[in-house]
Amino acid sequence: MTDATPPRPLARNPRGFADKRGRDLTAERRIVARVSEVYERWGFEPLETPAFEYADALGKFLPDADRPNEGVFALQDDAGSDEPGEWMALRYDHTAPLARFAAQTWETLPKPFRRYAYGPVWRNEKPGPGRFREFWQCDADTVGSDRPEADAEIIAMACEGLASAGLDAGQAQIRVSNRKLFDGLFDAGGVTEAGQRLTALRAIDKFDRLGWEGVVQLLGEGRLDESGDYTKGASLPTKVTTAIEAFLASANTPGLTRAQTLDAVARSGDLGAAGEAALNELAAIDRALAAMSVGQEAVKFDPTIVRGLEYYTGAVFEAELLLDTVDDKGRPVRFGSIGGGGRYDDLVARFTGQSTPATGFSFGVSRLASALRAAGRGAEDAVRGPVVVIVFSEDDMTHYLTAVAELRAAGIAAELYLGRAGMKAQMKYADRRGAPAVIILGGDEIAAGEVTIKDLDAGRAAAAAITDNDAWKAERPGQMKIPRDGLVAAIKSIIE
Amino acid sequence: MTDATPPRPLARNPRGFADKRGRDLTAERRIVARVSEVYERWGFEPLETPAFEYADALGKFLPDADRPNEGVFALQDDAGSDEPGEWMALRYDHTAPLARFAAQTWETLPKPFRRYAYGPVWRNEKPGPGRFREFWQCDADTVGSDRPEADAEIIAMACEGLASAGLDAGQAQIRVSNRKLFDGLFDAGGVTEAGQRLTALRAIDKFDRLGWEGVVQLLGEGRLDESGDYTKGASLPTKVTTAIEAFLASANTPGLTRAQTLDAVARSGDLGAAGEAALNELAAIDRALAAMSVGQEAVKFDPTIVRGLEYYTGAVFEAELLLDTVDDKGRPVRFGSIGGGGRYDDLVARFTGQSTPATGFSFGVSRLASALRAAGRGAEDAVRGPVVVIVFSEDDMTHYLTAVAELRAAGIAAELYLGRAGMKAQMKYADRRGAPAVIILGGDEIAAGEVTIKDLDAGRAAAAAITDNDAWKAERPGQMKIPRDGLVAAIKSIIE
Repeated sequence: MTDATPPRPLARNPRGFADKRGRDLTAERRIVARVSEVYERWGFEPLETPAFEYADALGKFLPDADRPNEGVFALQDDAGSDEPGEWMALRYDHTAPLARFAAQTWETLPKPFRRYAYGPVWRNEKPGPGRFREFWQCDADTVGSDRPEADAEIIAMACEGLASAGLDAGQAQIRVSNRKLFDGLFDAGGVTEAGQRLTALRAIDKFDRLGWEGVVQLLGEGRLDESGDYTKGASLPTKVTTAIEAFLASANTPGLTRAQTLDAVARSGDLGAAGEAALNELAAIDRALAAMSVGQEAVKFDPTIVRGLEYYTGAVFEAELLLDTVDDKGRPVRFGSIGGGGRYDDLVARFTGQSTPATGFSFGVSRLASALRAAGRGAEDAVRGPVVVIVFSEDDMTHYLTAVAELRAAGIAAELYLGRAGMKAQMKYADRRGAPAVIILGGDEIAAGEVTIKDLDAGRAAAAAITDNDAWKAERPGQMKIPRDGLVAAIKSIIE
Repeated sequence: MTDATPPRPLARNPRGFADKRGRDLTAERRIVARVSEVYERWGFEPLETPAFEYADALGKFLPDADRPNEGVFALQDDAGSDEPGEWMALRYDHTAPLARFAAQTWETLPKPFRRYAYGPVWRNEKPGPGRFREFWQCDADTVGSDRPEADAEIIAMACEGLASAGLDAGQAQIRVSNRKLFDGLFDAGGVTEAGQRLTALRAIDKFDRLGWEGVVQLLGEGRLDESGDYTKGASLPTKVTTAIEAFLASANTPGLTRAQTLDAVARSGDLGAAGEAALNELAAIDRALAAMSVGQEAVKFDPTIVRGLEYYTGAVFEAELLLDTVDDKGRPVRFGSIGGGGRYDDLVARFTGQSTPATGFSFGVSRLASALRAAGRGAEDAVRGPVVVIVFSEDDMTHYLTAVAELRAAGIAAELYLGRAGMKAQMKYADRRGAPAVIILGGDEIAAGEVTIKDLDAGRAAAAAITDNDAWKAERPGQMKIPRDGLVAAIKSIIE
């Protein structure tokens, strides 16, 4: 570096972007691998679309995304030209790219088309604690089936996927409803304007967080929240708001079966033709779930489920984590949503003009990994390090490298310490790497055709038991000197 | 869709971005999985850095990247503010993010730090046939070791990684040299200016493509290529160009061992102190490779290897594919480079000001997958589809779904056809899905407690053998009716 070198850049992540390693990364990769295996067994094929889409193809379906390119990372394509070209944006989910792909390749696809996808998605939002601008989602979708059994299959598969990832029975629940129930309520109440309906749906979607008191303000004139921000409401007629209240409250008795929930909802008021159709679809989903042996606890019907995304047209699902936390009445408390989905029959038609029914489910990989950690499921992701060979002298490099190669050839993760530090620092390094054992090939050992092995786990256990420092030095717990040709067998007996 | 709907977007990929599915995607994922397994056995831990880095942290190390943000996808971070903020850019490789990560976390890392990484990288270049703006790279690097054994380990591990991905002995070769050899040549010839040296190195890097005739023009005043583009040269003194010619030609006798190559290079002229240091490092690499049983054919020393990236400071490597193609003299023809790497001792110091030696290797996942396909290695990636259950009547959905669930519970990939088409189209669907078998549960079968299974592979084989259409109809090859409770066993006997 010369004096003309510009000032040194600061080594830092962009705001809202994180590095991943160690057990967190291992846990996420394990989830993706296990869920992929389940999805392939259900006949879903992998698909990988690019990070970028043209902005018009991506569409604007993020909630609260009213300004151009709001919420996405967008730039103008200038490749091969000095003129700025079309706007491209990084995908914010895996659904919009699937709709583009399906529209583009529809004639050549086997239909219905089942695919799963995983990978990062990007949202250009203000970052905060635990709120990242890049995160992994894992999706499965069926395009080209209007059958309720396609929804049921997605729901049942999501249950099996979450179980394969490590969530036990009772730790997760999928709650299901149908957007057409609200269509029926709006139709019956004479609410016809699409924007007004969407504002109302997004208000209802906040039921979990705001309760009925907050929702009713957002269905009416508007709501002033604690931070002083005012949100304009949907201005629904009072009779519609009343009907919605009765509808949302219709099935809040604990322990209802799916069929009982449908009965209760049907009795809540006038749901119109769309509502009747929704109830029939949900009844068919219930029968299909029963045929696939999906229990009443694993999947519930719940009229308060809406989903915030504009594009849903029928069944909607939300996966909730129910961990061991209980409230003061001993009832399980919700950890929160880790995923969801639903039917979006118009998304492919945006491109083709031809109705193409579709349904799918998506979950957040990092969020599920955090939940599993919270549930005490992280132990199996503890990272076991390689066996470490200590370096003493440059002249003996060949001896060290031969030992490492022997171990690896036997399928044992192993490495030679390649720094310049002394014995003590190397032992500390091996400990930090989580090494099960350290191999010492000093001049004496080499001359005698021997090798010293330190079993670090045994050493740690013994060290915890021994309180007398002199005894420690005399015994050297976990350390043994053996003939050099017994190296691989000795290490195997330590790590297996 | 109403008349007020804006014009429909065209469903198309952004230029230079591709969708991946089927055997191509399976092949790439298999490569990544197998190479990861090797790298972990060598003690390298996984690390995942974000897609974005701040532009100053990423640096400008792409060849021909002289304009601001040239070659990268960059945008200004505006999250949480109306003012445009710092420039961020998508990573163009995995090395620059590693340098940032290492500088940022150095105090907390076990040292030397070995990590591997895989995932997409993005280059904002003019797309063309086979030239994508998003592609996967897989990297392994050791940060914090100045030992030549660290370079040797990376090289030997790259060999094992490529072999695990499916390249047989003799199908790939890693060629190794050392940038300091050129430092020595420049020092000896009085060429001290960094820009002039870099221009000369990039000229020499084109040796494979342009031959000496083209390189000598680029080392001199410049070169006019066939398309009429003029590239300004390095304007080296003639005696330096002559020394470089002797150096590049010094080891072009086929069949030299690594040690013989070093001897030949040492005799080619004055390599200065830097050159002597380089030869010593290469000799140590040779000894370490021998200790790890890396053969002379798998790794060669080759003075024509330079690498185009500015940041290399010592050993440089290039992985070449040698496939079965031969030229008119029967000599193997190079398929080309699929990866490379080298030592970059100053990249972390960009941030910290403290010298932190590092070395690594990177290969292109898609390029390796293409090469394996060209080598006829794609067969194992053929996608086997799920067993398909045919749908006849809505009333029998429970029977179909139960059968599918039974198969899946037995670990067999299976699905219910969920479209609305008739029997013939469903059979065609199953065929296109690569289904091994089709399951028919018609009203008759259900009533009789039976199931009909069509073995599609057997059917196809028989169909190819039968020429008489009537015999075909009478025999229905590959079709059998069995008791319903024998379904899983019968399917297992077909697919296993």
